[in-house]
Amino acid sequence: MQMTDLIAKKRDGGVLSTEEIDFMIQGYTRGEIPDYQMSAMCMAILLRGMDDRETLDMTMSMMHSGETLDLSPIQGVKADKHSTGGVGDKTSLVLCPMVAAAGLKIAKMSGRGLGHTGGTIDKLESFPGFTTAISEETFFDNVNRIGIAIMGQTADLVPADKKIYALRDVTGTVPSIPLIVSSIMSKKLASGADVIVLDVKCGDGAFMKTEEDARTLAKGLTRIGRLAGRKCAAVITDMDQPLGWAVGNAVEVKEAIAVLKGEQQGDLLELCLTLGGCMLAEAGYEPGIEAARERMLKTIADGSALRKLAEMVEAQGGDPAAVYDTSILPDAKVKIPVPAAEGGYVKRIHAERVGLVSMHLGGGRATKESDIDLSVGVVLAKKVGDKVEPGESLGTIHASSKEKAEQAAALLRDCFEFSAEPVERPAFIKDIIR
Amino acid sequence: MQMTDLIAKKRDGGVLSTEEIDFMIQGYTRGEIPDYQMSAMCMAILLRGMDDRETLDMTMSMMHSGETLDLSPIQGVKADKHSTGGVGDKTSLVLCPMVAAAGLKIAKMSGRGLGHTGGTIDKLESFPGFTTAISEETFFDNVNRIGIAIMGQTADLVPADKKIYALRDVTGTVPSIPLIVSSIMSKKLASGADVIVLDVKCGDGAFMKTEEDARTLAKGLTRIGRLAGRKCAAVITDMDQPLGWAVGNAVEVKEAIAVLKGEQQGDLLELCLTLGGCMLAEAGYEPGIEAARERMLKTIADGSALRKLAEMVEAQGGDPAAVYDTSILPDAKVKIPVPAAEGGYVKRIHAERVGLVSMHLGGGRATKESDIDLSVGVVLAKKVGDKVEPGESLGTIHASSKEKAEQAAALLRDCFEFSAEPVERPAFIKDIIR
Repeated sequence: MQMTDLIAKKRDGGVLSTEEIDFMIQGYTRGEIPDYQMSAMCMAILLRGMDDRETLDMTMSMMHSGETLDLSPIQGVKADKHSTGGVGDKTSLVLCPMVAAAGLKIAKMSGRGLGHTGGTIDKLESFPGFTTAISEETFFDNVNRIGIAIMGQTADLVPADKKIYALRDVTGTVPSIPLIVSSIMSKKLASGADVIVLDVKCGDGAFMKTEEDARTLAKGLTRIGRLAGRKCAAVITDMDQPLGWAVGNAVEVKEAIAVLKGEQQGDLLELCLTLGGCMLAEAGYEPGIEAARERMLKTIADGSALRKLAEMVEAQGGDPAAVYDTSILPDAKVKIPVPAAEGGYVKRIHAERVGLVSMHLGGGRATKESDIDLSVGVVLAKKVGDKVEPGESLGTIHASSKEKAEQAAALLRDCFEFSAEPVERPAFIKDIIR
Repeated sequence: MQMTDLIAKKRDGGVLSTEEIDFMIQGYTRGEIPDYQMSAMCMAILLRGMDDRETLDMTMSMMHSGETLDLSPIQGVKADKHSTGGVGDKTSLVLCPMVAAAGLKIAKMSGRGLGHTGGTIDKLESFPGFTTAISEETFFDNVNRIGIAIMGQTADLVPADKKIYALRDVTGTVPSIPLIVSSIMSKKLASGADVIVLDVKCGDGAFMKTEEDARTLAKGLTRIGRLAGRKCAAVITDMDQPLGWAVGNAVEVKEAIAVLKGEQQGDLLELCLTLGGCMLAEAGYEPGIEAARERMLKTIADGSALRKLAEMVEAQGGDPAAVYDTSILPDAKVKIPVPAAEGGYVKRIHAERVGLVSMHLGGGRATKESDIDLSVGVVLAKKVGDKVEPGESLGTIHASSKEKAEQAAALLRDCFEFSAEPVERPAFIKDIIR
């Protein structure tokens, strides 16, 4: 088999066989197929497409390029969630304890990643003493005992994706549905969960700009997940502003706790109820989404979700008292409000730019070696549709110095767009794909 | 400027600006843009296309990636010819002396190349003493004095094409009209001629399989040549069998001399009259193709074309006597006929395979370092449409040993396809694009 022949086949609109796809993925992962051939193939796939059979084959071949996680030592139905990426996305911190409290098993392998804020692991390290460097034995034991554990990524999961994604990133071949689907689903399948729920963001700040594109991706992801024998659902959500109010690390943990305590409503709660509802319904724990949402709400009302978070924090070496008394969590030295220069109705809050404010404050990681300041970030006071008087606060900057805070305040002001006319709040949940 | 942005632009069907194309071509040639980005770009160009302005810009940028030949020291109109490649293609050996005899200037830089037979330079070295390693001064002097000279390629012409073509060859991105046009025309423009005539082959054995594809390429080549300010024409010719009768080196020189002597009619003469006719007409030396063909035929009838070949051979150190007495040229030790196993009408002669027979005999070059045996090759006795009786000779093998000759005879027999019904001779000249 010759890679040039496979490229020519796809270039001319042909369908690659299972063997051809595996030859290409394994060959590229092992370094036998050079970058310049793989990038030409990615462009051909982007412009010619792949059918479901090809996409499934590519996903499975990528999944088998490295280790896979065997969750069979865990009893019960294991659930996992993926988000296509958002600013202020603390969903896992709320969703996982709720779902675990409702009886599903959460055995999550998580990364630190690069970005405007830390990853889920960084955020959880806001709890003094908390660690994700636990043994596989402890990981499985904890999930069996309390229903939830989060471990730093140790296994060599899907090396093919690391290599292909890095190449796509520099060759204009990111926005291809089959390539995105195989990248996301190979990792999700390798992580071993029975139920996979996907949060597909759409909007200016998101990877998928239109609802139509987001729906196409969501359908592709769930179709391939089901073809691989897993239960799958996807939720399409609006990303024309940050999710919730806080963007940072400890500030996001505090917001997550507020939601788990029943003290905060709004988009973040709505998203967690919908994603969790899909998980429970797909697992067969509840007959439908509505009943499943009710079950999720109960975990807040009866305090079981918050207790589940405390149990997990404790089981992984953290101080569970911080769940009930958030003043123990990292707190910024300087906090200043950001008064609005003009008045009107908030039309848009550029999520990406709010993320850059957090990054500027030291709350994100630019390179793998960067240190994160867990205490800093932004807490919004206004969201899209809110009326703002001149001088009223748009949000609070949490910073390590007055100078950084003032720079960040100016940046945050630029994230807001105003309208003289009242602005309708956009529907946050656009669709549910089951 | 970022290469990833340019790739994305072309991927999405955009039009690249002059500056963007130059950034890409010069950056890639200097090694600042990596192969994996250029191959993704080539695939995007292949599938999305390029308009004439883009193709012209790419051609000009490639041309300026290295040295260009300044033919201004030569008086008169300089003409050049390019062929998309054929088996048994000794066209230059016939065409150039005829055209020079008719008054145009031929200042040709030629390569040895890899292939089933040697290049024009190798073939000319069949003349004892002949060399193309002449100084630029001698080269220009000879053209001014006798109207024709052929020099080995010394200048660093179009390094961009060498690099891009090598990449396209291994990434499935060869068959793209704008990429083919810029590859061919950048070299032709860099070679400095005022009049450029292109021989575009079509058929099973050619790069362009259909007449329609060949016409698209021919139109693209001439359009870009004209936009670059040169006079251009193209001839579309059939390649369902080798051109003429001989395939090799000295055997092809002997055939060329036979045509120049007026001893051989057929496709080779027809092609040279048409290409040369286009050159004279484009140069304004004759009012139209018909008159130009007559002028070309006269160079045979009055012996001036043959004398021009002798003059060139002598001016470059060769023995001009060989032009009049071809027994001085290299001659194979072993010559055997290839009797037909079956009878019928010749339906097809697989040109590519006949080329491989020559290669097998040692008449071609597999690597740059290979030595060529100038004496070996194939001389056909039958062409498409001819009737063959069983046992009648299909051609003669010229070989260095009896063993090689017998192997080659078996291979040559397999190149022929027969039909029980009479076969119409295909039109050799399919079209003239002016």
